Amino acid sequence: MSLIVQKFGGSSVANAQCVFHVAKIITDTYKAGNDVVAVVSAQGDTTDDLIAKANEINPNASKREMDMLLTAGEQMSASLMAMAIEKIGCPVVSLLGWQAGFTTSTAYGSARIHKVNPERICRELDKKHIVVVTGFQGINRFDDMTTLGRGGSDTSAVALAASLHADLCQIFTDVEGIFTADPRKVKNVRKLDYISYDEMLELATLGAQVLNNRSVELAKKYGIELEVLSSMTNEPGTIVRETSHIEKMLISGVAKDGDIARISIIGVPDRPGLAFKIFTKLAAKNINVDIILQSVGRNGTKDISFTIGKDNLKAAMDLLNPYVDMIGASSVAYDDHVAKVSIVGAGMESHPGVASTMFESLFESDINIQMISTSEIKISVLIDADDADRAVSVIHGKFFD
Amino acid sequence: MSLIVQKFGGSSVANAQCVFHVAKIITDTYKAGNDVVAVVSAQGDTTDDLIAKANEINPNASKREMDMLLTAGEQMSASLMAMAIEKIGCPVVSLLGWQAGFTTSTAYGSARIHKVNPERICRELDKKHIVVVTGFQGINRFDDMTTLGRGGSDTSAVALAASLHADLCQIFTDVEGIFTADPRKVKNVRKLDYISYDEMLELATLGAQVLNNRSVELAKKYGIELEVLSSMTNEPGTIVRETSHIEKMLISGVAKDGDIARISIIGVPDRPGLAFKIFTKLAAKNINVDIILQSVGRNGTKDISFTIGKDNLKAAMDLLNPYVDMIGASSVAYDDHVAKVSIVGAGMESHPGVASTMFESLFESDINIQMISTSEIKISVLIDADDADRAVSVIHGKFFD
Repeated sequence: MSLIVQKFGGSSVANAQCVFHVAKIITDTYKAGNDVVAVVSAQGDTTDDLIAKANEINPNASKREMDMLLTAGEQMSASLMAMAIEKIGCPVVSLLGWQAGFTTSTAYGSARIHKVNPERICRELDKKHIVVVTGFQGINRFDDMTTLGRGGSDTSAVALAASLHADLCQIFTDVEGIFTADPRKVKNVRKLDYISYDEMLELATLGAQVLNNRSVELAKKYGIELEVLSSMTNEPGTIVRETSHIEKMLISGVAKDGDIARISIIGVPDRPGLAFKIFTKLAAKNINVDIILQSVGRNGTKDISFTIGKDNLKAAMDLLNPYVDMIGASSVAYDDHVAKVSIVGAGMESHPGVASTMFESLFESDINIQMISTSEIKISVLIDADDADRAVSVIHGKFFD
Repeated sequence: MSLIVQKFGGSSVANAQCVFHVAKIITDTYKAGNDVVAVVSAQGDTTDDLIAKANEINPNASKREMDMLLTAGEQMSASLMAMAIEKIGCPVVSLLGWQAGFTTSTAYGSARIHKVNPERICRELDKKHIVVVTGFQGINRFDDMTTLGRGGSDTSAVALAASLHADLCQIFTDVEGIFTADPRKVKNVRKLDYISYDEMLELATLGAQVLNNRSVELAKKYGIELEVLSSMTNEPGTIVRETSHIEKMLISGVAKDGDIARISIIGVPDRPGLAFKIFTKLAAKNINVDIILQSVGRNGTKDISFTIGKDNLKAAMDLLNPYVDMIGASSVAYDDHVAKVSIVGAGMESHPGVASTMFESLFESDINIQMISTSEIKISVLIDADDADRAVSVIHGKFFD
C-alpha cells in the first residue's frame, strides 16, 4: 500500500465527462489499496472566465480581491470531483487550500508556499477517505486567500507529497510523458522512462512546458519521485527522480523557447562596472536575463548582448533607452524574432564532443548561430526564429536517429 | 456616525451593472460618515447554476460537498463587489463567512448560526475599510463550509448586526417595503412606515416572503432595528422594530399563502391520544402542521383536518395511508387546491370585531371558509385557491379603503 498524490490540470476536469474519467483514475488507484490525495485545478476556462468578469468590473482590481475571486474556481472543481467519486461509491472529502494546511507568503497572485500542515488530510486518510484538495491556493498570515500563480497546482501537489512523505506524485497532463523533443513538431521522438530533476529543470526552463519549474525544484529538494503521465492513456509516463550515473542518457531532449528577445547595447565604453550596473538595473525591475554575450566593438568599446523574456521587452527597452546616453554607449537595439534551441543531458558532463555534434548539425543545415550558452548539462544556441523548428529536428535527428 | 449593516440579495447583484449600482449605495453610505458592512448573496442564478452542475454529476451528492460547491457563489459575488467599490475609490475588503467569524451547526444545507465572532470585521472597520461579507455561509466545528439554507443571507446580516451592535440593519430587496397586501395583486395598498417584529413574523410565515423568518426572530431577540427597502429607489422603506402601543395599527396587512395543502382523516375512533399520535408521527418526519380542525363525525367518530406545506404533502400521505387502517379510521384524503388568507395586526388584541369584519367581507363575496385559525395578532382562514386573490382584495378593501 502506497500513499499517492495525483494532480489533474484544468483541461483534465473541464466538463462532467472529464470529471468522471478522472474520478475513475482516482478511485481505481484507491481500490488498488492505496491512500490517494488528488489535487485539482479549476475546470477548463473557469479561471479565464473569472478574470474576464473581474475585468468587466475593474481592470485594476487589487490582487487580494482577484485571489478571493479566483480561488472559488478550484473550490467548485474540487467539490464536483468529490461528488463524482461519491457517485462511484468511494468515501471522499474535498478540502480547500487552507483546510489542507497550505500557508503561503502574502504575495497575492504569486504567493509562495511557506508550509503545508497536513494534519487534517492525515485524519481523513486515517478514516480511509480519498482526499480531493484544491490546487493553486492557500492562505497567508492575515487569513486571506492567496493563489500561487499560473501552474501553481503542480507545486501544490509536490508540496503536499513532500509534507505527507508520499511514495509517488503523479502529474496528469495531456501528454504521455517527457519526450526527447516536441512530438507535434519532430519525427521519431522517444518518450523517456526516466529523467533527472536537473535535466527536467533545464527542459522546463527551456520551454518544454510540461511541468512547472518550482514544482520540480521542490521535488528535487525533498526527493519526491514525480511521474508525468497522460490522463487519457493507461500507460506509464516519465519518472522524474535522482538518477544514478549508469542510467544517465547522453542527451535527454531537445527543446525550443520562442518567447525570448535579444537586446544589444552597442559601443559601451570599456570602463569596469558598466555591465554590472546595466544588469543590476534590470534585476531591480524583476527582469531576468538569460544568455549574455560581450564582444569587442570599435575604438575600444564593447557590445553587450543578452536575452530576456519577450514579455519583459518593453519594460527593458524603456529602462535602457535613456540609460544608453548616460553611460556614453552609442545605441541600443533589440530583435524579438529569435529563438533558443537547447539540448539537455546529464551524460554530457562526461562525454566531450556533444557541443561540436550539435553545432555541426546546424552548420550542415545552414543555420546561423547568434549566441551560445552552456552549463554542465545543457547547451543552448540563439538562432533566427524562422530556423527554430528545423534546428530542433536536425539536432534531434543527429542524436537520436 | 453609525454602524450600518446592508444586505443585498442575488437579484440586486446579478450583473456588472447591478454590482455597480449596489456599490454606489454602499459607498454613499460610507461617504456619509458611516461604518458599513455589506452582506451579499450569490449573483442572480449562480446558486441554481451550481446546483444544476452538481446534479449533472451526482444528483445524490452529499450535503457537505453541496455546501462546498455553493459557498463559492457568494465568494465570487463578494470579491466582485469589493472590486467595484475599489473602482469607485473607497477602501474595502471582502471576507468569507469563516473569515467574518460565522460558526454554525454541522447541519449542511440548513446550518444554524452558533456564534459570530466579529473580531476581524472590527479590525477592518477600525482601518476605515468597507467590509463586504458573504451571506448564507459559515464553518462548523470540523472547519467545513456550511450554508444556512435559502434566505439565509438575511439571517447572516441580522446576526452580524447583532454581534457588531449595529445601529441599523438594512435589507435591500426588489420591493419598497412592507405593504398592507401584495401590491401586484391588490389595489390601494399602503406601504407601512413601521411594523412590529411579531406582526412581521406572522406576515413572513403567512407567505409575504419579504424577509426570512429566522432573521426576524433574531432581530427581535437582539432588538436590531431592521429596514426593508428597495435598492432601486432612494426612498425610506419599512422599519421593523418593537412598536409602542400608541403606534399599533389595527391591521398591518393581508397576506396569502398558496403553498399549503389540507389533509383530512375521516372517521377516527373517539379514543384519547389518537390525534396526539398522528401529530407526533408527522413531527418526527419534520412535517410542520399549521391549522388543525377537529369535528364530530358519524357514529361517535371524529374527523381531523389540518394543513401542511405543499412540499410535505407526499411524505405526509405516505406516512398516513398505512396508519389510517392501523388506528381504525375510515379514510384519509387531501386537497392541495387551497390557500390561507390572513390578516395581521398588533392592534386587534384590543379591538374586538376584527374577525367578524373579515368574515363579513368574505360572506359578501360568496367565498366559503373551510377552516379558521386565530392568534392574538392574526386571523387566518382556509379557502379554495381560486378565491384567494379575490379574498385578499375584498378584505383589504374592507379595512383600508
